[in-house]
Amino acid sequence: MDFAHSARAADYRDRVAAFVRDEIEPVEAEYHRALAADPWVVPPLVADLKAKAREQGLWNLFLSSVSGLSTVEYAPLAEVMGRSPLAPEVFNCNAPDTGNMEVLHLYGSRAQRDRWLVPLLDGRIRSAFCMTEPNVASSDATNMAATAVPDGDEVVLNGTKWFTTGLGHPNCSVIIFMGLTDPAAPRHAQHSMVLVPLDTPGVKIERMLPVLGRHDEPYGHGEVSFADVRVPLDSVIAGLGRGFEIAQDRLGPGRVHHCMRLVGLAERALELACTRATSRVAFGKPLSDLGGNRERIANARIAIDQARLLVLHAAWKLDTLGPAAARSEISQIKVAVPTMATAVIDMSIQLHGAAGLTDDYPLAAAYTTARALHLADGPTEVHQSLIARLELQKYRP
Amino acid sequence: MDFAHSARAADYRDRVAAFVRDEIEPVEAEYHRALAADPWVVPPLVADLKAKAREQGLWNLFLSSVSGLSTVEYAPLAEVMGRSPLAPEVFNCNAPDTGNMEVLHLYGSRAQRDRWLVPLLDGRIRSAFCMTEPNVASSDATNMAATAVPDGDEVVLNGTKWFTTGLGHPNCSVIIFMGLTDPAAPRHAQHSMVLVPLDTPGVKIERMLPVLGRHDEPYGHGEVSFADVRVPLDSVIAGLGRGFEIAQDRLGPGRVHHCMRLVGLAERALELACTRATSRVAFGKPLSDLGGNRERIANARIAIDQARLLVLHAAWKLDTLGPAAARSEISQIKVAVPTMATAVIDMSIQLHGAAGLTDDYPLAAAYTTARALHLADGPTEVHQSLIARLELQKYRP
Amino acid sequence: MDFAHSARAADYRDRVAAFVRDEIEPVEAEYHRALAADPWVVPPLVADLKAKAREQGLWNLFLSSVSGLSTVEYAPLAEVMGRSPLAPEVFNCNAPDTGNMEVLHLYGSRAQRDRWLVPLLDGRIRSAFCMTEPNVASSDATNMAATAVPDGDEVVLNGTKWFTTGLGHPNCSVIIFMGLTDPAAPRHAQHSMVLVPLDTPGVKIERMLPVLGRHDEPYGHGEVSFADVRVPLDSVIAGLGRGFEIAQDRLGPGRVHHCMRLVGLAERALELACTRATSRVAFGKPLSDLGGNRERIANARIAIDQARLLVLHAAWKLDTLGPAAARSEISQIKVAVPTMATAVIDMSIQLHGAAGLTDDYPLAAAYTTARALHLADGPTEVHQSLIARLELQKYRP
Amino acid sequence: MDFAHSARAADYRDRVAAFVRDEIEPVEAEYHRALAADPWVVPPLVADLKAKAREQGLWNLFLSSVSGLSTVEYAPLAEVMGRSPLAPEVFNCNAPDTGNMEVLHLYGSRAQRDRWLVPLLDGRIRSAFCMTEPNVASSDATNMAATAVPDGDEVVLNGTKWFTTGLGHPNCSVIIFMGLTDPAAPRHAQHSMVLVPLDTPGVKIERMLPVLGRHDEPYGHGEVSFADVRVPLDSVIAGLGRGFEIAQDRLGPGRVHHCMRLVGLAERALELACTRATSRVAFGKPLSDLGGNRERIANARIAIDQARLLVLHAAWKLDTLGPAAARSEISQIKVAVPTMATAVIDMSIQLHGAAGLTDDYPLAAAYTTARALHLADGPTEVHQSLIARLELQKYRP
Repeated sequence: MDFAHSARAADYRDRVAAFVRDEIEPVEAEYHRALAADPWVVPPLVADLKAKAREQGLWNLFLSSVSGLSTVEYAPLAEVMGRSPLAPEVFNCNAPDTGNMEVLHLYGSRAQRDRWLVPLLDGRIRSAFCMTEPNVASSDATNMAATAVPDGDEVVLNGTKWFTTGLGHPNCSVIIFMGLTDPAAPRHAQHSMVLVPLDTPGVKIERMLPVLGRHDEPYGHGEVSFADVRVPLDSVIAGLGRGFEIAQDRLGPGRVHHCMRLVGLAERALELACTRATSRVAFGKPLSDLGGNRERIANARIAIDQARLLVLHAAWKLDTLGPAAARSEISQIKVAVPTMATAVIDMSIQLHGAAGLTDDYPLAAAYTTARALHLADGPTEVHQSLIARLELQKYRP
Repeated sequence: MDFAHSARAADYRDRVAAFVRDEIEPVEAEYHRALAADPWVVPPLVADLKAKAREQGLWNLFLSSVSGLSTVEYAPLAEVMGRSPLAPEVFNCNAPDTGNMEVLHLYGSRAQRDRWLVPLLDGRIRSAFCMTEPNVASSDATNMAATAVPDGDEVVLNGTKWFTTGLGHPNCSVIIFMGLTDPAAPRHAQHSMVLVPLDTPGVKIERMLPVLGRHDEPYGHGEVSFADVRVPLDSVIAGLGRGFEIAQDRLGPGRVHHCMRLVGLAERALELACTRATSRVAFGKPLSDLGGNRERIANARIAIDQARLLVLHAAWKLDTLGPAAARSEISQIKVAVPTMATAVIDMSIQLHGAAGLTDDYPLAAAYTTARALHLADGPTEVHQSLIARLELQKYRP
Repeated sequence: MDFAHSARAADYRDRVAAFVRDEIEPVEAEYHRALAADPWVVPPLVADLKAKAREQGLWNLFLSSVSGLSTVEYAPLAEVMGRSPLAPEVFNCNAPDTGNMEVLHLYGSRAQRDRWLVPLLDGRIRSAFCMTEPNVASSDATNMAATAVPDGDEVVLNGTKWFTTGLGHPNCSVIIFMGLTDPAAPRHAQHSMVLVPLDTPGVKIERMLPVLGRHDEPYGHGEVSFADVRVPLDSVIAGLGRGFEIAQDRLGPGRVHHCMRLVGLAERALELACTRATSRVAFGKPLSDLGGNRERIANARIAIDQARLLVLHAAWKLDTLGPAAARSEISQIKVAVPTMATAVIDMSIQLHGAAGLTDDYPLAAAYTTARALHLADGPTEVHQSLIARLELQKYRP
Repeated sequence: MDFAHSARAADYRDRVAAFVRDEIEPVEAEYHRALAADPWVVPPLVADLKAKAREQGLWNLFLSSVSGLSTVEYAPLAEVMGRSPLAPEVFNCNAPDTGNMEVLHLYGSRAQRDRWLVPLLDGRIRSAFCMTEPNVASSDATNMAATAVPDGDEVVLNGTKWFTTGLGHPNCSVIIFMGLTDPAAPRHAQHSMVLVPLDTPGVKIERMLPVLGRHDEPYGHGEVSFADVRVPLDSVIAGLGRGFEIAQDRLGPGRVHHCMRLVGLAERALELACTRATSRVAFGKPLSDLGGNRERIANARIAIDQARLLVLHAAWKLDTLGPAAARSEISQIKVAVPTMATAVIDMSIQLHGAAGLTDDYPLAAAYTTARALHLADGPTEVHQSLIARLELQKYRP
């Protein structure tokens, strides 16, 4: 048992951390001002940061074949990237592009990779992933109503998707669409994943959805309808009916990334809390000397460290035993980490007083990010149910 | 001990509840659409609703001298008004105007009442209250840095205030400003309250503040600076140095109103949760039959009922024994009710899945309302501190 | 809405409170020493206290026909009696005798009342109530396996019961036994309640059960078997098949009493916490000035007051609208109050340091009392389920 | 980063786990029956088990110089030993003997080791550790009132200690006593540790203390007075004034052991909960299909796994960077693990219904064990305070 990061991981983490601290955090205010003026345009400073990150070799690190990093080695990088809302894109490591790139890398045909993976890895275009639907409980995948039906050498897509993250990004060019192909097939072979250029006729962005009042510009979460959308049959990834298989592979590392980014966000919230606690004075004392503030800081320290270890362990199990063996662990982090992160961020907001509710600090936006992950990628309760099922199976005859 | 409302209170409550249900809730979507298009304009339907409410005698009910209702009798009315963000204004019962009207009613000179109270009671103008400051811990009132200094027959105001609620309302015409007049006076006689027309030279709205990403249009929370603002000396309410005395009177009923509105908001969130739980199906069952949802609903029922009783009891004590005797009780509700409300609303959001995060339901906005009250009107921790002090005093020799 | 107790209730409460404070609490240590030496013998001081309480008219106050007190009027008396483990018996108001006396009062035949109710009201004998069974989930009453089958002019009892409270008391003379009479009858007419003298052949106390390591002497909780126990048919209360009906009547007030006693116990735990916090010094300060102790005291104050109000409201509803209308409220208090009481007592234990774990303070025993009520009289989860069912029914077509 | 145990640790863990499962758990009931009859006598089966464990090389494994195991390697062994109250002694790995043996091993003179360490390692005698005092807040070590004053070639001990664990064991022969030697010395050089044979004149066991109503026989927690107790000066360990230094070294690994044993106890409680949930039926379903039981099981799984990882990480840091660097981590586990363990055990009790409160399951006793550790070895709040101090130090200029 060795809790030290590999030399390679530690070196990357230090470099990414320094970049986030020295290059990204100082320009956050400028970034937000630019977005406030023009919400759906990527502020120009992002392109500069991307170029600089790429130059320093801090680019596409999520992809093992590029960086040589395992999931557990990439995890600390995701953590430091999670500190800032713009950091992931700067390193070309933001969801859902990371998951989409992995899918294309693993399952894409040569043509699909040439057309979509290359510019994605280049950071020239962005992509989206259409899975969740507004009218059904999407956590139960058998509810999926959207269809992807072959018709000659085309596949025809119909349905409405929502919470399609990144759809508002001006560079968003392609969607991976998940739809029902064959309801008569075995349960996990009914769905297909299809690549759909965003400008395909019949694809319509109905609206961008607020999440706790925020639109998360310039990425956004879209509601998008597909009305008899026709794309060539070779837009199907890996073949009809393989959607679930691909989704399963995609979700494990994706959840590790999400959770580690949240750990980083919580860590930043704790830093801000400590800074505030030691500098703000009320009733003649620094806040750190008032009431239960120290206990709250201690509890946040513990909660973050526990959560980080849980994610690292899950990543390690994913790396060493594969996604099937790590199902419980992956669900565990999806339950534990968002819960921890909202609690820590909420504590930090409270310690900042009314200012914590404004956007003068990154805390209010961070709260939304963390809270959304109680639902995104499967609600807490669905993951609890899976964990319990796997646990109870040990006791059944 | 009798938990039945008085006949008069019950009658008013039933009429207000019917009005909210039949006239207000059905037009909420239209109201929000109008605001989305034009955020700082009061949608025209509000004027119609105000006229209708006034016609039915459901107007200014918060003011005992108008309605004949005690605080405990008014409380159930505040509860049903709390269900909808536009309801309080419709009944001319929204904060901070209610508190300001009470202040003018109790302490205003004849001229002050003629100029400001009459149009406020009429619903023709709106007002704001400037107490909290950005640069100091305002929960410790001795920190207050803004000044209100007499100079001949004028009083000169300087300083910066923020979280000035209602400042964005197009009809907002007057501010009650609280400032330091005499630092050498006894601790509770140092501050003054001054009436300031919003268009007085030197008054500048610096910005409208987002609260968890929302601006709460058309009311808003403003940051406003006062630079050598001069108003006639007779703009001071009740005389120089009486600011704290007035504030104390103002806060008790105000907190009861805030808390009862939150109880109503939580009750609505529970209703939505139950509706969702009985209608939405996942994994072949209504959500009400899945996992811990019923326990959560039961716990919400209990939490709301406990909170309501606590507020009613505090109101009753305020009515029968006065604000000094009810200090602990008032602080107790300021701790308990916002905590309860955020938990219940959060539970309801979660039960609604991703939709609960959007503005398709009133839950996301309700969350912000409830969360802000962990800080507004004194942070939870400051009230806990007061409750503990009063409790421990019983044990000191 | 009037939160003042009736003059009669307030007078009784003051007198009972003074008695508990002046006569009972000072002899608690002596009482426990006597029990430590001789666990299943009632220490002689109890008889003296009983005589004195009776002399002062503080006797059988739980019984409305004796005291003229409604449930909501009796509630504050139960609260002060709950402060001390010996107080309820001193006032002849301890469970399960109160419930049993109510049953006999309401449903007993003249002969049954003469034989059992008179000495019970006199405090000469004690009784027990046999409902819960070890081998089935007794919260689901349809599981009940014990039988009460008529055979000529006798009724024959078989089965095993446990958690039969008071069975170890030396004066325990009679059991009310609940058993299945007719499985073919409608669901709520299958069971009977039967009076069984403890010395009836076939009745065997198998063992006294520890509850979190305590035996709660001299009352105790027994496991008792019935092997072909025969009693005359006129030992059946109110007639065969009426067991559930009687049980329903018995449980509502019983739960109010239990919960109010727990409120009193929690109040005492908070008093001890405050005393400790203001007198014990660590790191140069009284505990009240360290860390989150004041917040914990404030939260306990709030939690107790909320719980008390919830119980009083449930009692009032029981009084004014009857047990059927108050079902949700009664279940709510069974969920909320034990949860509150364990939390408050646990907090007080923690504030007492290691001493809080010993029996030098009444806290450790109080914890067991409160924790047991998460299960006794129906586990929390069963009550939550009932509350949710009643809540959700409002939303079903 | 590698979460796999070393081959040696894994092998030992498997063997200890098999021994606990096959040899110890099956005789627990017999062990408790024997103790119930004769509480302060070690049931004879323990000697047999000790012999068998020693024969298999599963003996004194806590001591690195014996087993070659680092703290992080020993941790999983402590976990499985924690499952059963008698297991630690069977492997000669129970507190406080482990800590005392470590102290003697590291700091004892040759004579001290010959006289006390040899028979302790042999399992022939037991020992106790006297630190906590009844009359002062012992979490603040500067409060310590007991004295160890040199007088010629003797050292004279005075004072009263309590919560001296193991004092009731029939083989307990020696105490390590901590007392104030020189109040004028620097803060961490004022106290001494002294070896005191239990039968030294002036040593008096005042009473055995109940902890939540239990005496934890045959070990027990004693209150013991020292009245002019004289022992030779060479009974002082490592020299006068070195008590704190030794205590610091002793506490780190001791806390890891305590916490890992609690993790094992919680794991057993979860196993029992799962067994119960899948076998017990109520309302026509196994408990696992009722209400929030699955969520509770999932949450317990997560909580245990997080806690285990936190302890393992702390152990690893202790091993690799030493006790000073691991201070926060050690305090973190002392906060997190007892809190987790009481919650998991309480959940399991609740799932067992009333039976969970009895001693028919090991849960009720386990609850006491876990709850006591919120206070033993420093109360939660003191550890939180240390964690916060270390955290905030990072932000101070």
